[in-house]
Amino acid sequence: MTQQKPSSDSLRAILADIAETMAQEPFRGSVADYIPQLARVDPAQFAITLATAEGDVISVGDADTPFSIQSISKVFTLAVALGNQGERLWSRVGREPSGDPFNSIVQLEYEKGLPRNPFINAGAIAVTDSILGQYAPKEALGQILQFIRFVAGQEDIAIDPAVARSEQETGFRNVALANFMRGFGTLQGAPERTLGVYFHHCAIAMTARQLALAGRFLAFDGCLSPGGARVIKARMARQINALMLTCGLYDGSGEFAFRVGLPGKSGVGGGILAVAPGQASIGCWSPGLNALGNSHLASRALELLADRTGWSVFAPR
Amino acid sequence: MTQQKPSSDSLRAILADIAETMAQEPFRGSVADYIPQLARVDPAQFAITLATAEGDVISVGDADTPFSIQSISKVFTLAVALGNQGERLWSRVGREPSGDPFNSIVQLEYEKGLPRNPFINAGAIAVTDSILGQYAPKEALGQILQFIRFVAGQEDIAIDPAVARSEQETGFRNVALANFMRGFGTLQGAPERTLGVYFHHCAIAMTARQLALAGRFLAFDGCLSPGGARVIKARMARQINALMLTCGLYDGSGEFAFRVGLPGKSGVGGGILAVAPGQASIGCWSPGLNALGNSHLASRALELLADRTGWSVFAPR
Amino acid sequence: MTQQKPSSDSLRAILADIAETMAQEPFRGSVADYIPQLARVDPAQFAITLATAEGDVISVGDADTPFSIQSISKVFTLAVALGNQGERLWSRVGREPSGDPFNSIVQLEYEKGLPRNPFINAGAIAVTDSILGQYAPKEALGQILQFIRFVAGQEDIAIDPAVARSEQETGFRNVALANFMRGFGTLQGAPERTLGVYFHHCAIAMTARQLALAGRFLAFDGCLSPGGARVIKARMARQINALMLTCGLYDGSGEFAFRVGLPGKSGVGGGILAVAPGQASIGCWSPGLNALGNSHLASRALELLADRTGWSVFAPR
Amino acid sequence: MTQQKPSSDSLRAILADIAETMAQEPFRGSVADYIPQLARVDPAQFAITLATAEGDVISVGDADTPFSIQSISKVFTLAVALGNQGERLWSRVGREPSGDPFNSIVQLEYEKGLPRNPFINAGAIAVTDSILGQYAPKEALGQILQFIRFVAGQEDIAIDPAVARSEQETGFRNVALANFMRGFGTLQGAPERTLGVYFHHCAIAMTARQLALAGRFLAFDGCLSPGGARVIKARMARQINALMLTCGLYDGSGEFAFRVGLPGKSGVGGGILAVAPGQASIGCWSPGLNALGNSHLASRALELLADRTGWSVFAPR
Repeated sequence: MTQQKPSSDSLRAILADIAETMAQEPFRGSVADYIPQLARVDPAQFAITLATAEGDVISVGDADTPFSIQSISKVFTLAVALGNQGERLWSRVGREPSGDPFNSIVQLEYEKGLPRNPFINAGAIAVTDSILGQYAPKEALGQILQFIRFVAGQEDIAIDPAVARSEQETGFRNVALANFMRGFGTLQGAPERTLGVYFHHCAIAMTARQLALAGRFLAFDGCLSPGGARVIKARMARQINALMLTCGLYDGSGEFAFRVGLPGKSGVGGGILAVAPGQASIGCWSPGLNALGNSHLASRALELLADRTGWSVFAPR
Repeated sequence: MTQQKPSSDSLRAILADIAETMAQEPFRGSVADYIPQLARVDPAQFAITLATAEGDVISVGDADTPFSIQSISKVFTLAVALGNQGERLWSRVGREPSGDPFNSIVQLEYEKGLPRNPFINAGAIAVTDSILGQYAPKEALGQILQFIRFVAGQEDIAIDPAVARSEQETGFRNVALANFMRGFGTLQGAPERTLGVYFHHCAIAMTARQLALAGRFLAFDGCLSPGGARVIKARMARQINALMLTCGLYDGSGEFAFRVGLPGKSGVGGGILAVAPGQASIGCWSPGLNALGNSHLASRALELLADRTGWSVFAPR
Repeated sequence: MTQQKPSSDSLRAILADIAETMAQEPFRGSVADYIPQLARVDPAQFAITLATAEGDVISVGDADTPFSIQSISKVFTLAVALGNQGERLWSRVGREPSGDPFNSIVQLEYEKGLPRNPFINAGAIAVTDSILGQYAPKEALGQILQFIRFVAGQEDIAIDPAVARSEQETGFRNVALANFMRGFGTLQGAPERTLGVYFHHCAIAMTARQLALAGRFLAFDGCLSPGGARVIKARMARQINALMLTCGLYDGSGEFAFRVGLPGKSGVGGGILAVAPGQASIGCWSPGLNALGNSHLASRALELLADRTGWSVFAPR
Repeated sequence: MTQQKPSSDSLRAILADIAETMAQEPFRGSVADYIPQLARVDPAQFAITLATAEGDVISVGDADTPFSIQSISKVFTLAVALGNQGERLWSRVGREPSGDPFNSIVQLEYEKGLPRNPFINAGAIAVTDSILGQYAPKEALGQILQFIRFVAGQEDIAIDPAVARSEQETGFRNVALANFMRGFGTLQGAPERTLGVYFHHCAIAMTARQLALAGRFLAFDGCLSPGGARVIKARMARQINALMLTCGLYDGSGEFAFRVGLPGKSGVGGGILAVAPGQASIGCWSPGLNALGNSHLASRALELLADRTGWSVFAPR
């Protein structure tokens, strides 16, 4: 009854089919336009990369074009914070889906400054602040970047300084969230210091290929490959997957779980990192967004992929 | 790396351990007290039953004592409605976690009468109403009951009329939800008719053992056993699992996904149905509830079970 | 510095001017259409009547055409309830503007079933229920109708049974509000019984002339004329005026206080009762509503009237 | 029927009675403690001053002790902004009561960054920002201070720099509000610049006597005395009174209108400015606050004063 593992060749064929279907999609969503660096990205681009349990790395499309990972960085900062602080982290951020848009402040007021989960903006800012409790801003940012480079096995991943600067100049809503939480004591440091680090880790640029590689530790129970080098505890990898499934696509998380059935985390740069535990880590990218702020084509592509491979955490094993 | 399947014997030992641990728990939560039939249930009771892929049915505790399944019935009415109507059902109910308590009406006002998901009260009432579009109340209720008897393979499952009557007499909040949705056109029939059926399916009594058996079709991709008689399409079984994982324990769904890592559905009677796809369907029951309205001990027991067996949809396969 | 009292003749001239200006208004708002009886009212109609301190009754327009007073009835039921119960009434309803639409249920959930004020639907239903604590439905309705006939000095004021029936058939939102409050214990009787009375007092039909007469007790400190027969205590009349000023036009109350500067109460039938304390009671009617559910032309006409007469509670005396 | 004007002697006697009653009040509320300068004020203090139409200035209690006027400054900045910009101001701030606490951000999110009225913090920050559109921060602050000195006829009114500094250091919530509105374009300048001016005008210190004098232009239709020097248009004075009545005491505005029946504006320093149009401007102060952030004793004292004098905008004239 359980799914047969698709071979490397059949995965290659599936990706080619998906790329072709996506190329023919007339509607591609709208590129994020709140900062010029995102607004001028070509919406015609599309990429998908699989990093499989067998060690294959299979790509189609613009898989070597870097894009701004934006909120996908929240997965990596969460992993860093959990690694450093363990369970203590959860006194500063909840673990429930919010039912609100990613940048909502309403929930924060009703719940006295405690953000619902680490993947809404407020929650991710609180996680960043927790890392700053132990490190100076430069060090904290270094830690996060070093972690991503390590899990991706790619030394050339870097922050796009123009994006970081633009975020800092226009991120009034995030300044509001940070100060609001600071007023409640959820943030412990100076809001502008925390936001400086936050805006920078959101401005990290990666390719779909690098993203797939960087997500392997979530697909393989905390290790870079099945039975390979351990990055974080198995329990933590599963917990991060759970949070991605329930909260990773903002107010489209339920829909993504329903349609795709895999943990995922999206960013307004158009990327989605998805995880098929034990099978593959998947980096997918297309810049056009749907109304909920998730990549339209990447969502569709992942749905097709799950359908063709049978990958779903809800299928029998 | 993937988990070895625990043997029938080791599962038996695990259940015995869990029952012992639970027996020693000083804090057992509070029994629901909004209707007398629930208020007078003995909080000391505890039961857990596994219905495994191998066909074993393994129980500990009060596994043959019937309890009121309450909101767990929403899983079965959803399956009936999906079976009858397919995708059309989703025009009347959403698929997103709500971030609100189970009986909240706030979300309904902000989202113009469309309930967020089929597992909050409003959503389940909308699902029940959709079944009534095709059947008279008695027939609809008959359909639901017959479905449950069939998937459990137990002909003696029945509605507790005293519970149904009490719900009907005190369910002002549900009357409010139904009429509110009727005002928006989400409900199409007379609210009192729909509520009559709703209160009755919530009043179905089952044992932990029956519950575990009734959940097999979710654990085995829509079939009563791996490769066995098909109840619903595989795709639908996975979709229901996804909804259970993201929305099944109300505002404790994220926490349950984080700690247990399995799709689950709770009821204020103290029951939880959990699903380990490909491995087992699990019926668990203890009447005392936590602040979010989920069974305190059943939640804890399922966390221990997942920990001991390694069952988690987020673990590699 | 204080305003000179305008003479009866000058008031007549002012009303004539206003009627002419209104006749030329191209935009007249939209007639309420949730029940057929309101939907088929001719939007071209307009009336205004003043009942002055001097005992003059001055009208222009369709001042003898009856219309459905709808929410304006809440002023009279409040007066009846305050007369019967005094300060005890305020344990069941608040005295604050709500910042929400008239039929919102959100505030009720956040504030545990206590409606914010007696002029939102929920609050008026709670007031009606409080009267039912002392009287049977027929008697309660008789009390309210008798009170209105007495203060208007008009025996032929009656309920429009077709309107009452339609309200009852389509008032799902109000059924929701009533049951929601019943769940919290704010309502003490059976919701359908309270709603029966509520729908009937909202269905009272009056002319602009009758409305102006009925409001005199609010303009003259609780008496039918300055120094005349006392209806309620002076303190209560002032309190009702205060509630009208802060809450009488739903979410347009602040705007009305800002522009007109007089206590007022609107109904979706297009009527507005306004009060210039010590000077006049004003009945105004035009069926077309603005986006907030208040009569568009009646609001404009009252602004012109206040401007021309200098009547404003915020002007020096 | 209308109230006789109380003589200067009888007003003196009424104030003496009130002061005595207040001195015996066992419960005095809690002094605001969010900044040290407010926390260390002696809660036993009480003062009330009337500035009457006849030109009398009558005081009891600590009427020459300066206190931090805090939000009462919003009345004066509104007058300055209206004087400068007229009706254009209303594109940036609404005129409706909010139904939320003074520092709530929820309404701002639901209503896309437009604050409900000029007296909640968000609204006052927007008003301050509008003044900065025309003046540099120092000049803007100079304008506001000069206006207050002029209307009070007191050259020695000044900003308490220690209070301003403390506000600036701890005002995270206000930083959140300002940045949130900046994100929506409601603020047009740099949030920190606007907040600098806002924190400073909230830190103005005045005595009850100075406050009463400063409010005369609201009591006398825009003039410093009946028929005296005009400060703003009569229409604007009435509009400000209307806003004070509907929104001046935050979520206690309805209650204050109900009990006192006069326009008022409170501050967390314990002051309340109240206005009896045509009769008197009233400055009242006692540092202890009730749960809604309004002075407990000043609210009570004003209720007694209104009761004894018959002053109420809702009484006949």
